This record gives sequence, C-alpha cells and structure tokens, in this order.
Amino acid sequence: MAAPVNVSNATNVTATAASEVDENQYSDDATWILTSAFIIFTMQSGFGLLESGTVSPKNEVNIMVKNASDVLYGGLAYWMFGYAFSFGDSPWSNAFCGLGQFFVDAEEAKMGWVFSKFFFQMSFATTATTIVSGAMAERTKLQAYMAFCVLNTLVFCFPSHWAWDSKGWLNKMGYVDVGGAGPVHLLGGVCSLVATLILGPRHGRWDRDEAPPMGSPTNALLGMFMLWWGWLGFNCGSTFGITGGKWKLAARSAVSTITASMGGGIVAVVLSYVTKKRKFDISYLINGILGALVGVTGICALAHPWEGLAIGAVGSFLSCVGTEMMVKLRIDDPVGCFPVHGLCSVWAILAVGIFGHVDGLEGVSRYDGLIRGGGFYLLGVQALGAVTFISWACVMSFILLKVIDKTIGLRVSLEEELIGADICEHGVGSPDDNPTPEFTEASGKDSADSDDDGVLPTLLARGGPVRRSKRPHSLGKRFGLRRLSFRSSFRKPPRSVLSLTGGQKDHPPGLDNPRPVYDHSPDGNGALLYPKIVVG
Amino acid sequence: MAAPVNVSNATNVTATAASEVDENQYSDDATWILTSAFIIFTMQSGFGLLESGTVSPKNEVNIMVKNASDVLYGGLAYWMFGYAFSFGDSPWSNAFCGLGQFFVDAEEAKMGWVFSKFFFQMSFATTATTIVSGAMAERTKLQAYMAFCVLNTLVFCFPSHWAWDSKGWLNKMGYVDVGGAGPVHLLGGVCSLVATLILGPRHGRWDRDEAPPMGSPTNALLGMFMLWWGWLGFNCGSTFGITGGKWKLAARSAVSTITASMGGGIVAVVLSYVTKKRKFDISYLINGILGALVGVTGICALAHPWEGLAIGAVGSFLSCVGTEMMVKLRIDDPVGCFPVHGLCSVWAILAVGIFGHVDGLEGVSRYDGLIRGGGFYLLGVQALGAVTFISWACVMSFILLKVIDKTIGLRVSLEEELIGADICEHGVGSPDDNPTPEFTEASGKDSADSDDDGVLPTLLARGGPVRRSKRPHSLGKRFGLRRLSFRSSFRKPPRSVLSLTGGQKDHPPGLDNPRPVYDHSPDGNGALLYPKIVVG
Amino acid sequence: MAAPVNVSNATNVTATAASEVDENQYSDDATWILTSAFIIFTMQSGFGLLESGTVSPKNEVNIMVKNASDVLYGGLAYWMFGYAFSFGDSPWSNAFCGLGQFFVDAEEAKMGWVFSKFFFQMSFATTATTIVSGAMAERTKLQAYMAFCVLNTLVFCFPSHWAWDSKGWLNKMGYVDVGGAGPVHLLGGVCSLVATLILGPRHGRWDRDEAPPMGSPTNALLGMFMLWWGWLGFNCGSTFGITGGKWKLAARSAVSTITASMGGGIVAVVLSYVTKKRKFDISYLINGILGALVGVTGICALAHPWEGLAIGAVGSFLSCVGTEMMVKLRIDDPVGCFPVHGLCSVWAILAVGIFGHVDGLEGVSRYDGLIRGGGFYLLGVQALGAVTFISWACVMSFILLKVIDKTIGLRVSLEEELIGADICEHGVGSPDDNPTPEFTEASGKDSADSDDDGVLPTLLARGGPVRRSKRPHSLGKRFGLRRLSFRSSFRKPPRSVLSLTGGQKDHPPGLDNPRPVYDHSPDGNGALLYPKIVVG
Repeated sequence: MAAPVNVSNATNVTATAASEVDENQYSDDATWILTSAFIIFTMQSGFGLLESGTVSPKNEVNIMVKNASDVLYGGLAYWMFGYAFSFGDSPWSNAFCGLGQFFVDAEEAKMGWVFSKFFFQMSFATTATTIVSGAMAERTKLQAYMAFCVLNTLVFCFPSHWAWDSKGWLNKMGYVDVGGAGPVHLLGGVCSLVATLILGPRHGRWDRDEAPPMGSPTNALLGMFMLWWGWLGFNCGSTFGITGGKWKLAARSAVSTITASMGGGIVAVVLSYVTKKRKFDISYLINGILGALVGVTGICALAHPWEGLAIGAVGSFLSCVGTEMMVKLRIDDPVGCFPVHGLCSVWAILAVGIFGHVDGLEGVSRYDGLIRGGGFYLLGVQALGAVTFISWACVMSFILLKVIDKTIGLRVSLEEELIGADICEHGVGSPDDNPTPEFTEASGKDSADSDDDGVLPTLLARGGPVRRSKRPHSLGKRFGLRRLSFRSSFRKPPRSVLSLTGGQKDHPPGLDNPRPVYDHSPDGNGALLYPKIVVG
Repeated sequence: MAAPVNVSNATNVTATAASEVDENQYSDDATWILTSAFIIFTMQSGFGLLESGTVSPKNEVNIMVKNASDVLYGGLAYWMFGYAFSFGDSPWSNAFCGLGQFFVDAEEAKMGWVFSKFFFQMSFATTATTIVSGAMAERTKLQAYMAFCVLNTLVFCFPSHWAWDSKGWLNKMGYVDVGGAGPVHLLGGVCSLVATLILGPRHGRWDRDEAPPMGSPTNALLGMFMLWWGWLGFNCGSTFGITGGKWKLAARSAVSTITASMGGGIVAVVLSYVTKKRKFDISYLINGILGALVGVTGICALAHPWEGLAIGAVGSFLSCVGTEMMVKLRIDDPVGCFPVHGLCSVWAILAVGIFGHVDGLEGVSRYDGLIRGGGFYLLGVQALGAVTFISWACVMSFILLKVIDKTIGLRVSLEEELIGADICEHGVGSPDDNPTPEFTEASGKDSADSDDDGVLPTLLARGGPVRRSKRPHSLGKRFGLRRLSFRSSFRKPPRSVLSLTGGQKDHPPGLDNPRPVYDHSPDGNGALLYPKIVVG
Repeated sequence: MAAPVNVSNATNVTATAASEVDENQYSDDATWILTSAFIIFTMQSGFGLLESGTVSPKNEVNIMVKNASDVLYGGLAYWMFGYAFSFGDSPWSNAFCGLGQFFVDAEEAKMGWVFSKFFFQMSFATTATTIVSGAMAERTKLQAYMAFCVLNTLVFCFPSHWAWDSKGWLNKMGYVDVGGAGPVHLLGGVCSLVATLILGPRHGRWDRDEAPPMGSPTNALLGMFMLWWGWLGFNCGSTFGITGGKWKLAARSAVSTITASMGGGIVAVVLSYVTKKRKFDISYLINGILGALVGVTGICALAHPWEGLAIGAVGSFLSCVGTEMMVKLRIDDPVGCFPVHGLCSVWAILAVGIFGHVDGLEGVSRYDGLIRGGGFYLLGVQALGAVTFISWACVMSFILLKVIDKTIGLRVSLEEELIGADICEHGVGSPDDNPTPEFTEASGKDSADSDDDGVLPTLLARGGPVRRSKRPHSLGKRFGLRRLSFRSSFRKPPRSVLSLTGGQKDHPPGLDNPRPVYDHSPDGNGALLYPKIVVG
C-alpha cells in the first residue's frame, strides 16, 4: 500500500481551511471561485434547456420552472442549514457533519472568504438537485418538486462534509474528488433512480421501446452546449483558487475536461453509428458528452490530457449503454439522469483510484493510484466512498420522497399527465403540443360535437382561459384530448384511450398499465381516475 | 441624525476617482470590471429573449432587433456624449454634469482605466435603454425606437453623474446606490411608463383582462435565467474592483443578490398559487425574480444575506401586485417594465435608507440607515434621489418621446400592428404567428375568394415576398388577416373586425377602441386608417 | 519606411515566449486566457444557433451537431498534431512550422502555462473550423464533415505558426494580427468559399434570387448576440494576459471591438433600409455586425475607439455587399461565411497596415502603419500575409475536400437533401419542417393514396420510426415529400418535382439543375438518383 505522503500538508483542494489564515491573501482565490460560480450558475440554464428540449412539448415550460425552483428552494435550504451541515465551522463539527453557520452570515473582516465559499458551494448544491428534475420529468407535481428541492439539500449536505471538509471522515482517509463526482453527480444520479422507481414510468411509455421524440432537439443541444462550457467553470473552479500551484491545476483541469468531452463525444458518435443503423442519435451524443464530463469530474485537476480522453471515452460508453439498459429494465428516466450522472460518477470516483497520483503542488491527493504503483489503497478508499454515497442516497431519498408522496403526493393525476403540466400547472402552452401522432388521427375520425363536456373545460374552469403559445389552431379542431372527455369515452373508449397511450389497437385497454391511477389533483379528492376513463 | 463618518475618505464605490493615482495599481480592478461588463452584456441577450418570448410571435424577431439597437445606437450615443456628461473629467465638470471626454479616447498611459470604466459604464447605459424596449413592444416603429436609443442616453447620463461621480450633488449628500437602482432601473422604469402612456395600449388589449398568451414561455424563462446570472455580474462588478476591501464587498453582493432572488421567487410562487386558483403563473415567477433582483440592486454590497432575502421578497410583492394594478388602471405595459424596474427600484433606493450602514471597508455608505440607528437622514437623501430621478425621467422622456412622435412617428399603423412587425419591418415570420384564437375561427367561416385584394398583398408588394418561418401552411388557408381586406370587410365588417380585436360579438364595432388610428407607415401619408377599415 | 522600434523587445502579443521565464509569474496571465477561452467556447453555441436559425428547419438539428463535431474532432486533432505544428517548441521548429509537443502534455512545473496556452489556442482552432460549417450547411454528409474537422486542423495550424509563433516567418517580418483575422477568419472564409464551390448550390437554390427564409430568425439573432459577447472575450483574451501593459491593451480591445460592432450594425441597418425597400433585413444586421467584428479583429488592441467605429463600418459594408455579390455570382453560401469571414478579414489585415502603430507597451506592432507616417512597409507585410493565407487555404482546402469527396463523399444524396438531414442523419424532426410554400400546395392538390410506397418509408425502415418535433400534424396529410415517391412521380412528375425545387411551372423539369445527382447514401451505391426521379 502506498504510504501517505506529506500528511502534514493534507489540505484537500476544495477544503482549504480559511479561518486560520489572514483573510486578505484570499482575494485572488475568492474572485476565482466567485467567477467560477457565475459560470456554474449558467449550468442551470443548460440543464433547464436540455430537459425542456428533451421532454414532450406539453411539459417544456414546467421543466424550466422546476429548474428555477432548484435555485429558489434548494438555495434557500442550503443557506439555512445545508452549508451549516457541510462546512459549518464550530467546536461541535465532527467527522460526520459540520454544525455551525446556520443562516450563513459573516462579519466584515471574514465575509470575503465565507461568502465566496458559500456562494461557490451553493452553486454545487443546486446543481445536485437540478440533476434529479430530469428523472422526475413529465409526471411530478410542481409542489412536490418544490418540497423535494428543500429536502434534497439534506441528502447532499452531509456527503460533501465527508468528502471535502477537513474534518470529514472520507477526506481524512484520503478520498479525492476534485469536482464533485460523488457529492454532486452520484448523489444526483442515485436520487434520480430512486425517484423514477417511486414515480413509475410515464403513462404509456413502455408501449414501445423507443424513447418518445424530443420536443425540441435544437434546444436540447443548446442546453448541452451550455453545460459543456459551464463544466469548464465547474472543474476549473474546483481548484478553489489560483494562488500557489492552484492555477496550474486549474489549467490542467480545463484541458482534461475538454479532452474527456472529445473522447466521450467520439465514442458516442461511433456507438450510435454502429448500433443505430448508421444514424447519429442526438441522445447518444448528448449523453455521451455529458457522461464523459461526469467521468472526468473526480480527477480533473490530476489527469493528463490522454487520461482525460480515455476516462471520457469510458464514461461515454457507460452512459450510452446504461441508457439502453434502463430501457431493457423498463425504468423510465426521461433524460437519462441515472446513466449519465449515476453510472458515470461511479466510474469517475474509481478512476481517481486508478489514475490518481500524489500531488506535489497542493496536496490534492496524498496517495498514488493503482497504475501509479500505489496499490489498491486509494482505489479502496474511493470505492468505499462510492458505496457510502450510493447507500446514503438510496435510503435518504427513498425516505424523503415517500414522505412527500404521502403528504403532498408526488405524481400528477393521469388527466393532468396526459394534458401536460404546461397547461395544468401554468396555464400556458397549446394542447397541440402533444406530439403523439396517433392522437390527431384518432380525433380526426371522430365528429367534434362533444367539445364542451370534456376534461379540459374542467381544467380551464379551474385556472381561467388557456394561454396558447405559438400555434393558433382552433382550440376545438385539433384538440385530440377532448377524446378523454367522459361522454365521448362512452362512445369509443378503447380506440380513444389507446390512441392517447400509444398502445396497439388490438390490445385490450389498460393492460399495459394495470396500476390504477388516482386523481391527486387538488379538486380530485383522490378518486380512482384511470380505470374510470378506460371503461367509460 | 447620523454624523458623517470619515468624510475625508468619501469615495463612492462606483465612483473611485481614477485620475490622481498611479494607473498601474488599477490592473486588477480593471480586469474585474471588464469581466463583469462582459457578463452584463449577456443581459442584452436575456432581455431580448425574455421580451421576445413574452410578446406575440408576430413580433418576436422585431423585439430582438430592438435589443440589438440598444447597443448599437445607445452605445454610440454613450460614446459620443453620454460618458462625457456622466463622468467626463474636466475643469468645467460640476455638481450637475460632467463635461469632457466626448468621443471617449485616451492616451496609452491612462487608457487602461479610462477604457475599462467607459466599457463598464456603457454596459449599464445600454441596459437602462433596453428596459424600455419591453414597454414599447408590439406597437412602436423600429425607426422611432432607434432614435429613442440615441436620445434616451440624455435621460440616463445626467443622473448617473449626480449619483456616482465624485462631484455629483447626490453623491456629495451621501446618496448610496451600488448597482444602479436609480440611474438604471428607476429611469428605465419611469421612461417605460411614460412611453406606454404616450403610445397607448396595443390594439384590442383591453377587450379582456388577462394578458395575451406569451409567444414562447420557454424562451421567456431562458431569458430570465440569463438575466439572473447576468445580474450577479451586474451587482458584483458594481464594487468597481477587487483590491482593498472591494473583493469582500463583491462576495457579499453575490450572496445578497442570490438570496434576494430566492425570496422574490418564493413570494411570487406563493402569490400566484393563492391568487391564480393554484396555478403557477409564469409572469409572476419572472416578474417576481426580476423585481427582487431590482430591489437588492441599490444595497447589494452592504446587505446581509437575510436582508437580501427580505428585500427581495418585498420587491417581488411590489412587482407582482404592481403588474395587476397596471391591468386595473388599463395601462398596457406588455412585459411589465414599470412594475419590475420602476416600482421595485423605488423600494431598492429606500431600502438603502432603511438597511444601509456605514461601510468601513471602502466607504460605500457614510451614513447609517433607519434601523441601524442612523435616523432619517440617509432615508431622506435616498427619497430625495428617488423623487429627483422620477421627476427628471418623466419630464425628459415625455419631451423626447413627443419629439420623436411628431417627427418620425412613434406608433406603427393599425394594419402593421395587426399583421406584426416581423413581417412588416423585416419580412420574416409567418402570418400564422398571430395567436388570437378567434382569428382563425372567423376566417374559417368565410369563403376565401378575396385573398388577393387585402392589406397583406400591399405590404408584400412593398418588401418583396414574405419570408416564412417554421410553419409551412399554405399562405391562403390559414391567413386570417385577409379578413381585414377592404372588400371582405364590406361583407361582414362587425364580425371580422371584432374577431381581430377580440371583442364580444354583440358589441358595436370600434366602440372599445374609439381612438382613430392614422396610417403612419411610410406609404400611408397619415391617412385615417382605423375607422375606414371598420366601416368598410 | 518606418524604422523598426525596440526590435530587441520584439515579442508579439499573442506569442510571448513562455519557456525562458519563471512559470510562476504567468499565474495572472494564465487565468486571464483561461477565462477568455471559456468565453470563446461559448461562441460555439453562438455559431451553432446562428446557423441553426438560418438554415431551413429540416436541417436545424444537424447543423448543431456539426458545431459540436468541430470541438470533438477539431479539438482532438489540435491536441494530437495541431498545437505541435503551430507552437510546438523543439530544436526542429523553424520559420515554417513548429515541431514538438504532439499529444500535448506537460510536467507539473511547466503545465500551468502550457495547458493554458494550449487551451486558449484550441478555442481559436475550433472556431476556425466552425466557420466553415455554415458554408457547407444543408447538403454535406455528417461523416464527411467530421473528417473535414480533423483535416482542417492541417489548414489552420501552419498559418498560426507563421503569424504568431516567435519563430514564424511572418511574425519575424513584423506581421501583426492580434485576434486572428488571418489564421482564424481568413482561413475559415476561404475554406468556406472552396467548400461551397466544390459542393455546389443547394438543390433549387437559384430558382429564385432571394435567400430561402430563415428557419428561426429569433434563434439566429440569439446566436448573433452570443457571438457578439463572445467576441469580446476573443479580442480581449488575445492580449494573452493582463500583466505589464497587457491589461491596458485588453481594455482598448474591448472598446474598439464594441465600437466596431456599433459602426457595423448601423451601416447594415442603413444599407438594408436603402436597398431593401425600407425593410430592416435580419441577414444584413447579423452579417453587418459580424463583419464589423471580423474587421476589427486584427487591430483590436491598437485601435482607438473611432478607428474601431470606422473599421467596423467598412467591414459591415463589405459583408453586406459581398453577400449580394455571392448571389449575383450564383455561389450558394447559406450563412454568408465567405463575405463575413473572408472578405472582412482581408480588410482586417490591411487595416492594421493602415491604422497600426508602434506599440510602446508590449511591442504588439514594431512598425507604424500608412496613416501614421510609417509608409507602405507594414501595409505590404500585411498584404503579403493576406495573399499567403488565401493561397494556402485555397490549395489546402481544395485538396482535402477533394480527398474527402472521393472517399467518403461530400454531398448527401438528393433525396436526403430534400427530406433534410435532421430526419435522414438523426431521425428527429418533422417532415413539416420543410418551409417551401409550394410544397404543401402541390401535395394538397393530389390525392393521398400513395403514402406507403414513397422515399420516406424506405428511410424510415433504415432508421426506425421518425421522431417528430413540435408539430403533431398527421404524418400523411402534410407530408409533401411523398410526392417524390417513385409511383406518384410517374403520375405528375413535372409539377411535383418543380414544386419541390421551387422552379417555375412552365420550365422543363431538371433544366435549372442539369447536374445529375448520384445517391451517395450508404444504401444507394452511388446510383444515379436525380434524373431518375424526374423522369419517373
């Protein structure tokens, strides 16, 4: 096993203790992490746009609002107690959690570093939450998601203490995670998996294998671009400054991050070309590049460019194959959050144990990795970290999501899911936004005299007139959803409902979704909704 | 009353005199404000996208062009004379205005600081103008708006001298405005109000209470995101550097800005949920967050995090309630510029008088605010500032806009307003972009044999074939606007015109818009247009 | 002729030799160029969005993917050999090329500067490639473009050695090019011209003079905004640091860049107003602003604000007039890459010879330009540089593109071009995205019973079900492309094909595009495609 090198100088890059040194020398470091945090916040736009472009158009506004909620509620929670549990500095702080600096504030002399560090860490915390919004897309109540943003801070804040705070037990063991593969991406990815398992698939998702069409691939790609450049700020900012040797580590982070994305993107293109009949799948490209970026997050400041390339390539492979596996396992993760952030971050954490090396500049790592002759110690610590994070995230997010489910209710009602959250939660967007082709066909074959007694009018009555976006088609003409109306469902129930669910015509209705769906909408009083519609 | 503290060191954060000290020590500060200015310029994209997504699709391109014009014409004017009147350094400079450095230039020895400061201040100046573009949306001639961009610099440049220049009279009295609540947002907000009152409402706006549907809520939200992160650069850059204690103030600015947005966003969500029948209104969210950010702009570098939260919450409340009040008062401000930037900036200015305190680091404030035991002096100075800005902006913008109205003409003709600026001014966009539902219905009930003699062909003849975007529908089929054609308006005038204006069917035509509309288009020679169409 | 001033200090701004001085003092400069490189990478989003918004909707996703490929493949190539040939430092490096540092890596002591410089230069290199993607839009195979991204690095890397490396022969002669007018924009522009000439026009492009309508002018304008702010990072970062006098040059770069864009934008608006029947053409605005930004790229750090304004105005004029000339010459450059980047960069290079002056701060230029009394020496060197770059780019890109054409095949098959790359290459997007009006009209007059045997089903069979975006219209109803089906083309070939090509009805089919089109698609085996379709 590798002997610990210069343990006396054992300061983790992202956990440089600020309190015992003169505040003034931190000026340069503080402005570096402030600037990085600005860039990291632009990743909220990126996640929002990527998810908004990936989901069906009837939910594209709602998912943007959810990404704003991450900052609003997640940020508030991080200010109130998240930072305190993560990095709170007090005599009560221990190996398991910080305790202090609740409702973060600081006196003038110390505020420069405290506020910079808080602001930077908050940009990480809100990112961890925003990852989950993709997995919960298209079927989660907005109120429930807002509650989740607050509570998810509890999932995030303890692991970041373990990994990054100088008192954290993983940190003391030598765990290395420069950019937050564990406390950001692995937690986000595992919470995503738990959330999607609790929520169940989107209605009708498994009637066919292929993913539903992206609502706006252009927006999704623009979101990916934003994340790509934002990741540079994420990984370079994670050196926590530029003084001493930190600027060199930042430069290496930038290069290894960009080479990782190259390796990842190219692997994704090749994978898609080979397995998708010579098509270049957009999801592969996006998930490949993002998976590669996640993959290099843990080791970025230590990786040589070629290592970044290789790590990114593996990350991309895991991400693309993982996405296909999720389909095979019938787990509906609309934006691929678990494969991209969950699987790849495990790889990211282990990659440090393989490629990591003692860092002479800032002591980022005190041990050598497997191929550097350090044996299995660092790899073991990293694996222990990964297992810990996974277990913690599973248990915590399961408890929290179940609590939300029992109180607020996690999933929207079937009718609201079919109509889409944009109309139901925000009163914006056109019913035409539903992209299912069968949809229009079905409604086209039916006479349109039952417009006034359907589900939609009820919803309209709740929130005033529907605001319409972009497409000025007559509300009655193209609004296939009126087929869901109770009167018309009496007339041709099987055909209508199947056309909405995308099922095959000769398939008995309801069989592919035997789970009864209850109306959890505020007016619905939990009445059994779904079979009622099917039977008529 | 609070005694003035260290008056000898009375340098406002944003007005540090550059000339008397060695240029070289400004290197760090200069690069900070340069970087901040880059981020602030991205707010032009944010405003453009927010406005473009909020207006109806027939004007979404035009409003982007107007946001580019802000930089082109407003920036040119600021270079020519705006900076000279604001910060021009010469023996003639006095308490009321600077005088010097017209057509800004500098020799090599001094250019570092001069150019950085000019570039940074220009990013503020163009922002002040861009605010107004939202209030004038959907009915202002592009030429008129371009002229306004030049002239509005006159409205902006004097107040920024008063507030920020070391010779300015408000600055000398102790007025504090870190990020420009007064000289940017209050001026922009009041100009918005004056402009919208002079322009009058969009045609048919008050036939119903609810705002017309957003053209693209997703774009509007993306624009909000861009403004959100840009605001961090706006407020942190306003410390005007990072040397000395400025980096600490910048860090505090970042935190108070983000907590303000949290407070604002959460208040907006709650307000919408309570008042809008459990819907989460997108406008509330956007206006709430932006109103909160405006609210904290004046005090950002001095506010504790919890103060930021509270100030943002109040700002959001003012912004959302103000928007509703504008509707009640029948003042048509399409993007809510006055409530967001006008009302909230008054709060922002007064908040300094309440929460402000003597700043020991850089002398940002020399007086204590009301709750710090400073009595009413600072609050009084701030109120005086607010009243001054409001009066100045009212008078100046009224004069300038009236001059433009009498010469170029401020408002587009009715036909151009109905067809939309994208087609009329730029020849892009599809007539289908008009989102009024009645529209298509009306045209659907009429036979389509009068396509060739309508208003549109005339317009087409002026600028060549209409370029069509996105939707490939047959021009004739869905083009409801042909109902405006003179021949067809003979046939069923009341129904047709009402359907365009969104009026009730049993309402005599024209009554809800008795104001005659003249054709100010270049070919129209000011002929009376609107009643002509109605009567046939 | 001007005598060389302080030759002993003859270090080009962008080529400061790093090796011989202590690495540590580069900390500030390194973080400046790292930050600038982050901003420059956002220009990839800008180019992507601008091109995506300009092309027809059936290709908007594909062009985003191509812009991602620039970074993936171009970046990889630059890492492997591009940097080595440009700035590789070894005893074999000479006036023509660097040789060393293939597969860029560095030891800890030197890595700060090496990685920063590499990362910054890579952001330039990928930009040079991305320029070309616009010129090749809507008709280039994605595989071919990917190969081009790798090979184009060969075109780019040698000229940047000549111009910027301290050993480069142009640099030694006194050639000045601060932001890369020659090695980025001129190379990109000339490659664009060569590529578009080899590719030939888009099918049916010259049936009419006006450009096809932009798919999404709003996206195009947002892309322009992103490029605008990104350019500030591009030009300010090109001072290669902030120590010494570099921060002053950076401040001057920012101001001259923004005044150039003002001059350019205003000229474009006026030109459009005068020549386009009082319309404000979006393409003019975009090309004018970008042309102005290209125009000031060479001299940015040396130009006074008014010089920036004048240079930008001329650049914009060249860009707008050049775009019209391309139409007259029947050269189909969909996004105007050659006029914007090619023509304007020649002006940019010559402008240094006219307005340039000896730089006392950092020795950016050692000679005075024409109007500074320096005579024709500097202008001559600049002209020599321009001629060299043009010749090099012509020869190299012709060879490389021909090699790709003979091996992979450069152009997509006619059927794929008509259907659009989004469906054919990625399986996303709706057939409704084709914006040609005649299209729908033609199909509307034909009975729709031949849906199942057309070209599209074949394509679908290749890649699974078509993913549909945004518009839920029935696949059969609006899918004009089924007119291309072999059976239906028997029935009414001339009308159908003409309607697709946009030709006049009384024109014999195929005459405007006599060039036979071969099916280069993977399944097509190079069969003659186009006349086959026409004849039936």
